[in-house]
Amino acid sequence: MKVQVTQENLNRALGTVSKVANTRNTLPILANILLKTVDNRLFIAATNLEIAMTEIIGAKVYDEGSITVPARLTQDFVSNLPSGTVELESKDNKLAISTASYNSTINGIPADDFPVMPVINSQNKISQKSKDLKIALQQTLLAASSDDTRPVLTAAYLHSHKGQLFVVATDSYRLAEKKLSPYKDDISLLVPAGALNDLMRVLPDNDSEVVINYDEQQVRFSVEGVELITRLIDGNYPDYRKLIPAKFATNVTLTKSELVNITKVSSLFARESAGSITINIDSKAQQINIHSIASQLGENTASAEASVDSDGVVTLNSRYLLEALNAFSGQRVTFSINGKLDPCLLHSEENKDYKHIIMPVKS
Amino acid sequence: MKVQVTQENLNRALGTVSKVANTRNTLPILANILLKTVDNRLFIAATNLEIAMTEIIGAKVYDEGSITVPARLTQDFVSNLPSGTVELESKDNKLAISTASYNSTINGIPADDFPVMPVINSQNKISQKSKDLKIALQQTLLAASSDDTRPVLTAAYLHSHKGQLFVVATDSYRLAEKKLSPYKDDISLLVPAGALNDLMRVLPDNDSEVVINYDEQQVRFSVEGVELITRLIDGNYPDYRKLIPAKFATNVTLTKSELVNITKVSSLFARESAGSITINIDSKAQQINIHSIASQLGENTASAEASVDSDGVVTLNSRYLLEALNAFSGQRVTFSINGKLDPCLLHSEENKDYKHIIMPVKS
Repeated sequence: MKVQVTQENLNRALGTVSKVANTRNTLPILANILLKTVDNRLFIAATNLEIAMTEIIGAKVYDEGSITVPARLTQDFVSNLPSGTVELESKDNKLAISTASYNSTINGIPADDFPVMPVINSQNKISQKSKDLKIALQQTLLAASSDDTRPVLTAAYLHSHKGQLFVVATDSYRLAEKKLSPYKDDISLLVPAGALNDLMRVLPDNDSEVVINYDEQQVRFSVEGVELITRLIDGNYPDYRKLIPAKFATNVTLTKSELVNITKVSSLFARESAGSITINIDSKAQQINIHSIASQLGENTASAEASVDSDGVVTLNSRYLLEALNAFSGQRVTFSINGKLDPCLLHSEENKDYKHIIMPVKS
Repeated sequence: MKVQVTQENLNRALGTVSKVANTRNTLPILANILLKTVDNRLFIAATNLEIAMTEIIGAKVYDEGSITVPARLTQDFVSNLPSGTVELESKDNKLAISTASYNSTINGIPADDFPVMPVINSQNKISQKSKDLKIALQQTLLAASSDDTRPVLTAAYLHSHKGQLFVVATDSYRLAEKKLSPYKDDISLLVPAGALNDLMRVLPDNDSEVVINYDEQQVRFSVEGVELITRLIDGNYPDYRKLIPAKFATNVTLTKSELVNITKVSSLFARESAGSITINIDSKAQQINIHSIASQLGENTASAEASVDSDGVVTLNSRYLLEALNAFSGQRVTFSINGKLDPCLLHSEENKDYKHIIMPVKS
């Protein structure tokens, strides 16, 4: 293989794919990236056997061929090169990388040993604008579980319901649901949240279409020459809609940043109680009060003005509340509760397609 | 005690002093800060018994008094309060902190149990502009040793020589010397580098005078209401001047950022060899070449154009070279060497008061 590429393109592509390569894996080749000429372009790929990430960049191809080289070293090296032309030449399982002032030889492994990239055997296809999908993932993935004993909850649930596409994640303590575009067909995919975190990192903040192809076992996301393929998780997602109350007894609306501040301050006194804070909603004073207490440290009450329709009290995990508030983009947010043990809802006039449910702590 | 202060002043002072408080200490009160009214102002102090850091801020004093409270909690709490007036009131070993919407009570320890702040029994005094001292510390402290078996090398050596004040640090592998202002008297202080790192963090980047008082055991730095007192280290500093060669056989001058780049890239291939890189200075080609090799990974040669007076070769630790280069502020830098085992010097026309020596690696 002998090709010429620009440092800018090569560096960007290495940054995109190489995070998927894994040095802790027992198979040394999984710590490598694959470089391969394809139709006068350069194909760059990494995989950890669960996720594969690939990018194709423009190249001047002198000799066709392929090689694999350590992902981290190659990325660190290329990122420190000056911008401009970079020549890549493979010979005897080594890759020579050269520019006007830099000449390096990196030891590789033959490309024949690299896992075969998975193929999707289906024409099933949906598409979303990249920036919309990115926001949806930012708002939902935080609620996915990291506990492998219930694999279904480590997925984000991409599905259609009454002619709309939704993405949902829950760890059973909280749940985040984002409504995407209208979609008339049936779809129900359990996509590993870890793979979607990798996808989120590389999605551009623009209107480019992300094409999503899937079959029974796998899903592929393609955008601007980058592809991510991941296996799907097997199982049935919980019927989460019946958990969301239709009505709430108490609704309080206030400036999001004030609710963030009083929650943060209260959480400082909640370290002993695993983050528990008690939220007191006062319709007479038209304010929300958060109280937290730590026998060792002291106690705290913080208040903010709010628009309140009825009194109410609930005890929550402050970390869940802070993470949920961070997922809202607007100025104001509404917090709705029923009884002390019923699910709470965070929503906002400015983020109508987004719901965030938090389960109370028993107090 | 009952005082009113501004959140801005209190927050700044807590940020300054509370890093010195240490939660890992066996004495719980050392994790606390002292708050004490002094002449209609509020005195705030923390100490780890080696270093004491204090600041005095303006306050409206209603009742005189004092208390100590946990440094970290208090700082985290105050930093999250809105700007404006904050009221502090101590009662029954608790401190109530309140603003319009926040009311918290932090459990404290009586101020009587707080260590007595050290006193300097001497009129010995020098002074330096804050921004000059800050730069001098940034350029020298990196070379101090962290190895407690030779306590003298964990100090920065603040001393006078031929009518000039100098600050020097060395870990015996490298040495950094900064010339400060002219000074006619004799001074020779071994100040712990750790304390000076704490000082550096709080020195303002301006022309304020830092007043330095010292006696046989201790030194105090005072600037803009902030004071840091630390014990001095006992012992004799090595006679480092005789280690700096008077002449160099080979001198190479080049753009600092290019030397940083080729060193960084070379260091990627030097991980197996504890960072060793070989620098080849070529007078015919008027360039500097850095070579590094790793049997597992591959090898690399990187070059940069330079102004060279004579050929030379030396092997160095790439981390020491990168850290040294970061300490220079100008555009160009000169690297001077003699034999393969002789000390190398980094210096610059734009940083005439600064010398950085690196010992070669035996290769």
